Amino acid sequence: MLLHLSTWAEIEQFLQRSRSIVVPIGSNEQHGPTGLLGTDWMCPEIIAYEAHKAGDILIAPTFNIGMAQHHLGFPGTISLRPSTFIAAIGDWTRSLAAHGFEKIFFLNGHGGNIASIEAAFSELYAEASFARRKAGFALKLCNWWDLQGVAELANEQFPVGHGIHATPSEIAVTQWAYPDAIKHAEYSPKIANWGPIREAVDFRARHPDGRMGSDPSLATPEKGGQLVMMAARSLVRELQAFSEEPAPGL
Amino acid sequence: MLLHLSTWAEIEQFLQRSRSIVVPIGSNEQHGPTGLLGTDWMCPEIIAYEAHKAGDILIAPTFNIGMAQHHLGFPGTISLRPSTFIAAIGDWTRSLAAHGFEKIFFLNGHGGNIASIEAAFSELYAEASFARRKAGFALKLCNWWDLQGVAELANEQFPVGHGIHATPSEIAVTQWAYPDAIKHAEYSPKIANWGPIREAVDFRARHPDGRMGSDPSLATPEKGGQLVMMAARSLVRELQAFSEEPAPGL
Amino acid sequence: MLLHLSTWAEIEQFLQRSRSIVVPIGSNEQHGPTGLLGTDWMCPEIIAYEAHKAGDILIAPTFNIGMAQHHLGFPGTISLRPSTFIAAIGDWTRSLAAHGFEKIFFLNGHGGNIASIEAAFSELYAEASFARRKAGFALKLCNWWDLQGVAELANEQFPVGHGIHATPSEIAVTQWAYPDAIKHAEYSPKIANWGPIREAVDFRARHPDGRMGSDPSLATPEKGGQLVMMAARSLVRELQAFSEEPAPGL
Amino acid sequence: MLLHLSTWAEIEQFLQRSRSIVVPIGSNEQHGPTGLLGTDWMCPEIIAYEAHKAGDILIAPTFNIGMAQHHLGFPGTISLRPSTFIAAIGDWTRSLAAHGFEKIFFLNGHGGNIASIEAAFSELYAEASFARRKAGFALKLCNWWDLQGVAELANEQFPVGHGIHATPSEIAVTQWAYPDAIKHAEYSPKIANWGPIREAVDFRARHPDGRMGSDPSLATPEKGGQLVMMAARSLVRELQAFSEEPAPGL
Amino acid sequence: MLLHLSTWAEIEQFLQRSRSIVVPIGSNEQHGPTGLLGTDWMCPEIIAYEAHKAGDILIAPTFNIGMAQHHLGFPGTISLRPSTFIAAIGDWTRSLAAHGFEKIFFLNGHGGNIASIEAAFSELYAEASFARRKAGFALKLCNWWDLQGVAELANEQFPVGHGIHATPSEIAVTQWAYPDAIKHAEYSPKIANWGPIREAVDFRARHPDGRMGSDPSLATPEKGGQLVMMAARSLVRELQAFSEEPAPGL
Amino acid sequence: MLLHLSTWAEIEQFLQRSRSIVVPIGSNEQHGPTGLLGTDWMCPEIIAYEAHKAGDILIAPTFNIGMAQHHLGFPGTISLRPSTFIAAIGDWTRSLAAHGFEKIFFLNGHGGNIASIEAAFSELYAEASFARRKAGFALKLCNWWDLQGVAELANEQFPVGHGIHATPSEIAVTQWAYPDAIKHAEYSPKIANWGPIREAVDFRARHPDGRMGSDPSLATPEKGGQLVMMAARSLVRELQAFSEEPAPGL
Repeated sequence: MLLHLSTWAEIEQFLQRSRSIVVPIGSNEQHGPTGLLGTDWMCPEIIAYEAHKAGDILIAPTFNIGMAQHHLGFPGTISLRPSTFIAAIGDWTRSLAAHGFEKIFFLNGHGGNIASIEAAFSELYAEASFARRKAGFALKLCNWWDLQGVAELANEQFPVGHGIHATPSEIAVTQWAYPDAIKHAEYSPKIANWGPIREAVDFRARHPDGRMGSDPSLATPEKGGQLVMMAARSLVRELQAFSEEPAPGL
Repeated sequence: MLLHLSTWAEIEQFLQRSRSIVVPIGSNEQHGPTGLLGTDWMCPEIIAYEAHKAGDILIAPTFNIGMAQHHLGFPGTISLRPSTFIAAIGDWTRSLAAHGFEKIFFLNGHGGNIASIEAAFSELYAEASFARRKAGFALKLCNWWDLQGVAELANEQFPVGHGIHATPSEIAVTQWAYPDAIKHAEYSPKIANWGPIREAVDFRARHPDGRMGSDPSLATPEKGGQLVMMAARSLVRELQAFSEEPAPGL
Repeated sequence: MLLHLSTWAEIEQFLQRSRSIVVPIGSNEQHGPTGLLGTDWMCPEIIAYEAHKAGDILIAPTFNIGMAQHHLGFPGTISLRPSTFIAAIGDWTRSLAAHGFEKIFFLNGHGGNIASIEAAFSELYAEASFARRKAGFALKLCNWWDLQGVAELANEQFPVGHGIHATPSEIAVTQWAYPDAIKHAEYSPKIANWGPIREAVDFRARHPDGRMGSDPSLATPEKGGQLVMMAARSLVRELQAFSEEPAPGL
Repeated sequence: MLLHLSTWAEIEQFLQRSRSIVVPIGSNEQHGPTGLLGTDWMCPEIIAYEAHKAGDILIAPTFNIGMAQHHLGFPGTISLRPSTFIAAIGDWTRSLAAHGFEKIFFLNGHGGNIASIEAAFSELYAEASFARRKAGFALKLCNWWDLQGVAELANEQFPVGHGIHATPSEIAVTQWAYPDAIKHAEYSPKIANWGPIREAVDFRARHPDGRMGSDPSLATPEKGGQLVMMAARSLVRELQAFSEEPAPGL
Repeated sequence: MLLHLSTWAEIEQFLQRSRSIVVPIGSNEQHGPTGLLGTDWMCPEIIAYEAHKAGDILIAPTFNIGMAQHHLGFPGTISLRPSTFIAAIGDWTRSLAAHGFEKIFFLNGHGGNIASIEAAFSELYAEASFARRKAGFALKLCNWWDLQGVAELANEQFPVGHGIHATPSEIAVTQWAYPDAIKHAEYSPKIANWGPIREAVDFRARHPDGRMGSDPSLATPEKGGQLVMMAARSLVRELQAFSEEPAPGL
Repeated sequence: MLLHLSTWAEIEQFLQRSRSIVVPIGSNEQHGPTGLLGTDWMCPEIIAYEAHKAGDILIAPTFNIGMAQHHLGFPGTISLRPSTFIAAIGDWTRSLAAHGFEKIFFLNGHGGNIASIEAAFSELYAEASFARRKAGFALKLCNWWDLQGVAELANEQFPVGHGIHATPSEIAVTQWAYPDAIKHAEYSPKIANWGPIREAVDFRARHPDGRMGSDPSLATPEKGGQLVMMAARSLVRELQAFSEEPAPGL
């Protein structure tokens, strides 16, 4: 089920049979000369939507703006500060927990989000710890490229030139889902350079076209479709495992 | 242009010819027995997407979670606290302003957002005021039902039973855009009651099925399509006027 | 009763017979060439003090600094940012609720406060919603010009030139209460212009003497006295209605 | 001048001849069986108003709610948390500094405010320090009982039974200014006990009628008038000294 | 016991016999030409470590960065803003209280910390007050120079030239504990001047070498040792008294 | 140089020849039956102090309380919430940057800190990004076990039973530095189990004695000394490299 296309009564019924929900979460940020600004929130959304066709799982609306400060040197990037991001994840979680959701699975599409999302989890748990009580919910962060089988497939598809930003795998996923929005450009160099990630001005100076270590020209919609299918199948399984994970005996 | 389907280079070019952007903003909350939880963020998104077909305007990703605390008694509602909402609108705005956007037009789909969005604007302006400088950007809030011609059309379409929450007009808009997600139910009473808006427990007690003053059975996809077309045309014009509004002589 | 002129024991007794309190709330900000900087907090204070003579109602100290960032271009204006305003209203409310007040009626004197006050209410309610409990109190915002009969009277008194800032009605109220502080000036133009409200620099450029749409020369102490009497009578009634409003059956 | 009874134009003129302003600041909290809840904000207001008759000094509106958490066990007390108090003092100061005020003199009426006000000053200064610039303003905290000559006079008036909360001196000041609000009660014991100040529940248990070390029956309006005159004269002098204090050579 | 050199199991046992803990708290800031930057956190740490040899008391890790904004003009000073300081003291306290500590004794080494520490205490207590419950813990602030007998001894040792910053007594304490880090310089003037404490730029202009009213050349390790012994003995006694202080009958 | 044992004048001189500083940062938290509560802040402190003997490098005071919410079920653990941690790292950094430090190297001793420290870096950088300027400083996080050669050495020393919490390598480091505080216990099981990290109650239920995957009985002071020497040498080199890293051409 897609939560935003459901009624509250349907969610009330869903909660009778499951206490789990998937939240696609990403970022809206530059992805090199040809990558779409929405790549990092569209990838987990695409995978989650595909997965929901295969099972009785519930997908929340997509959390589409994340922590992308280092990309702010490129127009179109929109970023939350970590403190804002933590507050917002907190309110999403408090809302869902108030309805009785106990297992909240964040399917993430942006490496730069990881630290802030984990910090947000700790912030939420600490509320309970300081009050000497249980939180009543468990939070899980999973990057879509860490879903079982995905990294292996991407390595096969892109043995060289994958890189870590504006990668051919993420671009392929969006090409598969949005074939009308495929962009083309000359890449120079073909495989982009690497470097440390600091502030936004520094980042653009080191990475003038926005890529890090990647050759996006390797992306094709077909490869994207393969990645989506692999990821969607794994998501269903990993959500199932998370849902069934028992609380430790206390 | 849809920002999320564009590259940073395309946005850099867009900024050469315009400094304006539309941000669809709404809420994910209960909308009665048949209204979709995503209604309030999907309506402005639907209208903005329609409008962008008609002109060279830029649409940001949709800000899909707003201030819906009074609906938290109904499963599926996700709400930001006003303080979080203000922080997040602030970061969106600071990001866009850092790229050079000077006119940011928030197309809103949820009445409960209005206070917090206006507070967010003041918070941003105050940063500049306290530093004795100009903000460098102007922010505008416009509810989609306040776009020129829309309220008149809705009054014609729904002379009775429109109400103020889970209204037939907003439900019609989503029916037009998501015909596969049209839901049915018996409404009792046919037209829902009214009452003050307080906290969530109080709200659900006063409004057991979530509606306020509305009869959603009046909605049809056709009426929704008419509303979208009217709203989209007006959006283009009102954005144009906002873009051309001169700064006062200083 | 005026709370600040009472002892704690008197308030403890009052709580045996009523759980309601009125908080006059306003702003300290420019009011054109002749309006007093304190106009917006003095008006609700004047009305509330008048009302307390007529019945057993309790008036809190006046919350005298509000959200006036757009007036910061004019000396003497003091403004809270919305985030600070929300925090402060929160602490006032938490204090009063800790004593057992259940109906807190904010009598407001400044249009620019409305968004932040409503946001503050939602922030407070959300604390309870996220914890799945009732707030235990109900908050009501009422602008003094929305008290029954007041707008009609003002329309009669000032059929043209009322405007929306530095209005003859609010200036008349302060003239009635503070006759020694009546100021005079030439107004040019006689009726001030209108315009959008943005940041402070922009506001002063658009409205060089601070007025919006008003002709304050129409104010007289007599008209002010009539407004106060009308408002005070309505305040007693509306507070009574709010106090007696039953909680919905749960 | 009283700022709230002035126009913005009058303040603009005042700033041509002075960059100093007095902010009466206090608290609204229990003051024993007979002390008024407003005592701590009315005392500095009374003194400041008296002082402004004697010289060309400017008095801001009264900051009437301070840090009174330990009195929250007594009905009628309204308290800001220190974090809120710091934010609010910050916004008052930023507003005044934006107009060009350079010497802001807080005349305080509540011992429990001191820590938070000093913390607020440091918070404001640190903004400048972290940015490696001067703040552009100097902030001074002065309790009214520390104005020159006041403590000596109070010692003469009340050689025993002065205490530190609900003192005869502060009650005398309010008796002089508000003779219609003089309250009477039996005090038992005549001189209240002392003890550490902790949280509110603890405080009320230690001090059942709210007093600390005081015998309020010693207060008379006449003594209050003497205190006010002494304090007002000293305020004018100390404000003058603060205004003329040169910035250190840099 | 030193908490950081203990295991959790040892602390669990300690809590069976005591609910008290000492937190050395100070600041890292300039201390004149010869004072160590760590002086203000090392002094309470030195005293607390000495005290723990004499009795079954528990010493927490040292809170080593405090509120030192006025010293930020001198390299090596590290300061928290008061708001950050309050938040951090809050989390230390919430952590300790969650384990069952009921009496938390902050042994302070920096005058500039006092306001923020007291504000932090009130912030913590207010959480309980607003929720109409007891905090469950008592917090005590004690400056090491206010421990019984210390000020008298320092007066004897340094009848002139003690001053209030970079004092010979605090420097003597660090000389005793860190004899290898004794520094020498010419002082001009021999006894430093005094002045108001404002922002950092102002402070350095008034106090070019950082001292306030002091002649650090009077310090010797021997005098430092005497001070430490006196302070350590008093600390044990004062902690004992605090631990045994009964809660007031409720 | 150890900053806390230096004078401000010595730091002013140091800044003439270097703009780099090392901040040891860790956590105070349970480390199993025999690990010291201070392990995670003492390890980087021990290594940094050793390193400073070998070169002209500057070591800041130790940031000793980090993000340890999941260990709050064990007495003695003290944790900052991520939001507090971010604020505090921010103020340390702003202080150091105000003095001219441009390369700030955080030597970390706690895995649970990583997310919050990285979030803090982004928060600081975003301040600059939103203002369209460079931050003026670069921040680097390095865990001591990631210093070159350390992991290899630990793998040799502890081929089985290293685990991830209360590891023999970290315990060995503290044994070398604090031989008088070596603790002994029976471990059951010899090698602790693994599991997901959630909130504190959950953590203690899964890991009753606090260890994760480790056998601390393998630790010896000698192995600790080897680790310290290896880490200290690498720290000097890696700090050197960070210091010399050129800013990208802009």
